[in-house]
Amino acid sequence: MATVAAGVKHRGRPDLFLAELVSGTTVAGVLTRSRSASAPVDWCRQHLPRGRARAIIANAGNANAFTGKCGVDHVHHMVRATSSALGCPQREVLVASTGVIGEPMAIDRVTKALPRLVKGLESSEWKRAAQAIMTTDTFPKGATTTTTIDGVPVTITGIAKGSGMIAPDMGTMLAFVFTDAAVPAAVLQRLLQKANELSFNCITVDGDTSTSDTLLLAATGKAKNRRPRTAQDPILKEFKFALTGVLTDLATQVVRDGEGASKFVTIDVTGAASSRAARRVGLAIGNSPLVKTAIAGEDANWGRIVMAVGKAGERADRDKLKISIGGVVIAEKGQRATTYDEATVTNHLRGREIHIEVDLGIGRGRARIWTCDLTYDYIRINADYRT
Amino acid sequence: MATVAAGVKHRGRPDLFLAELVSGTTVAGVLTRSRSASAPVDWCRQHLPRGRARAIIANAGNANAFTGKCGVDHVHHMVRATSSALGCPQREVLVASTGVIGEPMAIDRVTKALPRLVKGLESSEWKRAAQAIMTTDTFPKGATTTTTIDGVPVTITGIAKGSGMIAPDMGTMLAFVFTDAAVPAAVLQRLLQKANELSFNCITVDGDTSTSDTLLLAATGKAKNRRPRTAQDPILKEFKFALTGVLTDLATQVVRDGEGASKFVTIDVTGAASSRAARRVGLAIGNSPLVKTAIAGEDANWGRIVMAVGKAGERADRDKLKISIGGVVIAEKGQRATTYDEATVTNHLRGREIHIEVDLGIGRGRARIWTCDLTYDYIRINADYRT
Repeated sequence: MATVAAGVKHRGRPDLFLAELVSGTTVAGVLTRSRSASAPVDWCRQHLPRGRARAIIANAGNANAFTGKCGVDHVHHMVRATSSALGCPQREVLVASTGVIGEPMAIDRVTKALPRLVKGLESSEWKRAAQAIMTTDTFPKGATTTTTIDGVPVTITGIAKGSGMIAPDMGTMLAFVFTDAAVPAAVLQRLLQKANELSFNCITVDGDTSTSDTLLLAATGKAKNRRPRTAQDPILKEFKFALTGVLTDLATQVVRDGEGASKFVTIDVTGAASSRAARRVGLAIGNSPLVKTAIAGEDANWGRIVMAVGKAGERADRDKLKISIGGVVIAEKGQRATTYDEATVTNHLRGREIHIEVDLGIGRGRARIWTCDLTYDYIRINADYRT
Repeated sequence: MATVAAGVKHRGRPDLFLAELVSGTTVAGVLTRSRSASAPVDWCRQHLPRGRARAIIANAGNANAFTGKCGVDHVHHMVRATSSALGCPQREVLVASTGVIGEPMAIDRVTKALPRLVKGLESSEWKRAAQAIMTTDTFPKGATTTTTIDGVPVTITGIAKGSGMIAPDMGTMLAFVFTDAAVPAAVLQRLLQKANELSFNCITVDGDTSTSDTLLLAATGKAKNRRPRTAQDPILKEFKFALTGVLTDLATQVVRDGEGASKFVTIDVTGAASSRAARRVGLAIGNSPLVKTAIAGEDANWGRIVMAVGKAGERADRDKLKISIGGVVIAEKGQRATTYDEATVTNHLRGREIHIEVDLGIGRGRARIWTCDLTYDYIRINADYRT
């Protein structure tokens, strides 16, 4: 991997990231479902189905989104320059961009910086790689773990960026995950989708889905484990657990660094009609500006959780609903719990780790959602983002 | 009508409202679709289908929502006290409450204040009535117009409240509209639903749907016009136009008084696959915290409008999308317009009336949505609402 300061938007900070992948690497990806996706996302959507990649190139500072034919040309420039520098086919170069939408990118700065980037290629630059894809992020995000496939040790390491325009229904913003495991591309894709459902698709900062969300998983095969045949192969049990763990670690780092966030909120929904219903209820709570401002104000205004459950549109029975904050039961059977002591809850809300539990009491569906509070700083950061 | 200061939450300000309706009055209503609706909403849902009402009683300061059996009892207390004071059947008393969710209401203060309320009944107390249902509202909201049915002059007058927990899919918060027209209840209900679709269902402050939203329309029949037989009766043409006008006036007043709002935003979506699709795209823009903070910051960050169109989930073609702000074309054919001059748009954004136009370029569906910006004051008001 390598990074370089190309000056796409700001000068003197690394903003271009390149990962070279050994021959034979399989790749899987999850991309934004936005109907106004960026040119780099279009490129990945076209080339991911082959399941092979030799390089990932990514820049921060400009999303190269809604830039028309010029945006498509810029993707081609980045791909061509990378492919000729590394000597690999263009279709095996994946591209991602993040930053402002709708402004033409200074592509010459990117292509000019590429030779320097290639010259700097070395292993284990994780932290600098994570820094090179930051925009409004306040810290670089990475996670790593080791596990086994059929007794053979394998490593999974990933980086991610993102702190605004974060909402589910995609692999949020940019995340690149790498493993030395040997996994066929079709299997890798299944594993990634499943793990993504439980991690990136369960976070929200502001409910705004980006044009550029890209989650890529590359498997080099260097670990030389026995190759699984299907996603159901029992030898993948530990790997699945580890992969979900790394993605969840990255996803929750994104939420912890949510724009303006002062508190990290975990929402557990149980007793829903289905896990899909549980997720929708959790996201209705996690996306509610009234719930989020109450948490910012350390105000135990649990009536807003009742409101959010009601607006989710999923089956709910007011009289079976049970709500707890910080382990304290606040409401049950359609009204405030007789034992409720607000002082304990207020004390919990003064902390930085908030836990909300909602039991719908009608089924067995469950989901865990992560979000953050909504503060003055979110307004400050976003009222004048482009300058 | 009459109002009185019952002291439900604050002392010394009018917080209880009563409208007595002459015998023969027909009534129609639209209620929240929340799955955790309040006890007063449940009562109205049960009794509205009869289409007759003799009284509307409403209080501010406590929503009587999620208060269990106690909440149901409190509705019965309010209904019983009103029905015996006015000498009308209990089923012809409609109830609405607004304020904090989940706290038991001081019902004795309400019932104790009722005799004073009934004694004060007189006509034309519109402004005080509008004041009595306010919570975080900064001004009372009313609208009136005169029109004709079959040549007979009729009047439509309404009041509304609301400035937070405002989102579509209902008649937002509380709105009571009265007319002296003679309209059968079934026809009145159709007229109200249609006019509501074009007014209250097209506004959003924060995307949070309340537990208590109630829109009631009462028609006393005093104007003695020829009674229309169906909602399609041509004699209703002017009345429909006037009703939509009054509801739109009230709905936009709610948005203008949106919590913390500093700017009023009109979003026109055209060229969508259907009017439903246009509405969803408009609401995706109007509910996006990133679009709303950019407007608060007077920043022409139109890339966020591209993002919001993309996340709406409706059919869109990036390369046909056209975006204008303040009449200036910013983006078309998938990229920034060559003629675009940001200075003009920035100047428009410095004003208080913001106009966003989005043409999807793929069909004939259109919708107009109203919203406000997202400011520091929204956070301030909501971080500590209950104290």
